[in-house]
Amino acid sequence: MDITFLGTGGSVPTTKRSTVAIALRIGPEVILFDCGEGTQRQLMASSVSFMRISRVFLTHHHGDHFLGLPGLIQSMNFYGRSAPLDVYGPSGTAKMTKAMLELGIFDLRYEVDGHDLTPGDEVRGEGHSVTAFQAEHTVPALGYVFQEDQRPGRFDVERALALGVVEGPSFARLVEGGNVKGRGGIVTPAMVMGPPRKGIRVVYSGDTAPCQGLERACQGADVLVHEATVASELEDKAREFGHSTARDAAELAKRAGVASLYLVHISGRYEDPSPLLEEARGIFPSTIIPNDLDSFVVRRAL
Amino acid sequence: MDITFLGTGGSVPTTKRSTVAIALRIGPEVILFDCGEGTQRQLMASSVSFMRISRVFLTHHHGDHFLGLPGLIQSMNFYGRSAPLDVYGPSGTAKMTKAMLELGIFDLRYEVDGHDLTPGDEVRGEGHSVTAFQAEHTVPALGYVFQEDQRPGRFDVERALALGVVEGPSFARLVEGGNVKGRGGIVTPAMVMGPPRKGIRVVYSGDTAPCQGLERACQGADVLVHEATVASELEDKAREFGHSTARDAAELAKRAGVASLYLVHISGRYEDPSPLLEEARGIFPSTIIPNDLDSFVVRRAL
Repeated sequence: MDITFLGTGGSVPTTKRSTVAIALRIGPEVILFDCGEGTQRQLMASSVSFMRISRVFLTHHHGDHFLGLPGLIQSMNFYGRSAPLDVYGPSGTAKMTKAMLELGIFDLRYEVDGHDLTPGDEVRGEGHSVTAFQAEHTVPALGYVFQEDQRPGRFDVERALALGVVEGPSFARLVEGGNVKGRGGIVTPAMVMGPPRKGIRVVYSGDTAPCQGLERACQGADVLVHEATVASELEDKAREFGHSTARDAAELAKRAGVASLYLVHISGRYEDPSPLLEEARGIFPSTIIPNDLDSFVVRRAL
Repeated sequence: MDITFLGTGGSVPTTKRSTVAIALRIGPEVILFDCGEGTQRQLMASSVSFMRISRVFLTHHHGDHFLGLPGLIQSMNFYGRSAPLDVYGPSGTAKMTKAMLELGIFDLRYEVDGHDLTPGDEVRGEGHSVTAFQAEHTVPALGYVFQEDQRPGRFDVERALALGVVEGPSFARLVEGGNVKGRGGIVTPAMVMGPPRKGIRVVYSGDTAPCQGLERACQGADVLVHEATVASELEDKAREFGHSTARDAAELAKRAGVASLYLVHISGRYEDPSPLLEEARGIFPSTIIPNDLDSFVVRRAL
């Protein structure tokens, strides 16, 4: 699994930072979180295939979070997409998706469906779920928890050999949940498999002031992608517009025991984001401010 | 006057070419022709101030020609624009502009007005006009003629001195249309001013197959900005989709006696546009294929 930061900018893009869009690649599938203007070109400049995007999760209906969608949908059409595309977001997303499809003249040859989510709604995918939580912004806004399903426990090779299981097909059978014969009788999976392991958890805050929904969502997350529009010296401004500071994000990451923190939605006023990075790292050292197109492998934290 | 090619790509952008947008800067004013997705970022990377854009002329309602407009409008709003913005285009532009303003949630604090044009309609500006002509595409489409007003004739200093006009305020008076005293009596402007000179003429084809409207429009143009989606070996494909080849553009430029030809709307299949350039220059040597963000001074051809 890897995460690619296609756009990391604030409400208005800059020459360095496109408006926000984050791609999570899980095997052959790509999930997109937000889709600011220019996302299709950012995808072209990345290693993420835009034809593999199956679902788009919008956090809210401010233009910098969705205006890349009409162009992306039309380019997918141009390249002959036939697989359906699902767009999720807060109340009004189904209607807005329809409005985007009616903008200008084009002949859509695949299905695009918009879906309204309310906090707590879970969208199931292959081996994972995405669950919406309530964010706190100037307009109705959601954040999202991507949660990989529980993984089976580790297979204890030494224990299996000690029980007289012969290496080969019997090992595979045990991993798949079947019983096999050992030296002293039947060997069951429970005898050789460790406890199930937690799946990877990635949380994306969207645009939000600190709030309970986010606080709960990011407990024990492996990756927290958090907005940090400004530094804490502008905390009043951040609150006025329903945003967070780098300090807010770092303090939350520390409290919630997340493994790594990535800051996005960096205001155009920070051509050099060092002040934000220093502020956050002083509180939570495992903080990164990605540049556009930076990509990171996502692993389950130990 | 100068022209900046903000986007020069075809229907789908590439990492090198953004979708089409062309800025014409006339003194303090900027007129934008088409506004593909990403235009606001291209403007930021150029020397053209996006707050100075007074009017946007859309050629047609395919996404690659207008999807940058919602984001541009919203960023102008974010930066405190108060001056109205006029958007012109073929039938349906007023309705589409309204739909763009209703997309997502934002609080517009200046006026944005959409206007439907029909071929022949002229929009007056300060010292110039923009006139729409009928293009031939798969959907209703216009091209545009930017025509600078006639300039006054040249003032003949030697003739004025020979007539006994004293250098100084009398010269200015003559240029402004007043009579002055000379050695042998009254000297009128007609005696010292050359014939009025033509203003600069810039023609933009929009997306079009060769057609009469365009043919007439570009007679004697100083600058012809012409789409050249593909090379002539793909002429059938070009016609099928209402487009032109590089050869079409060059032959028209030659027939119409234009001074310089700029090719845009280059299909993504040409990572290297040399085949198009060679084809066009073989017919019309003064051909340029601009890269995104290239800027050129526009002068009246001699």
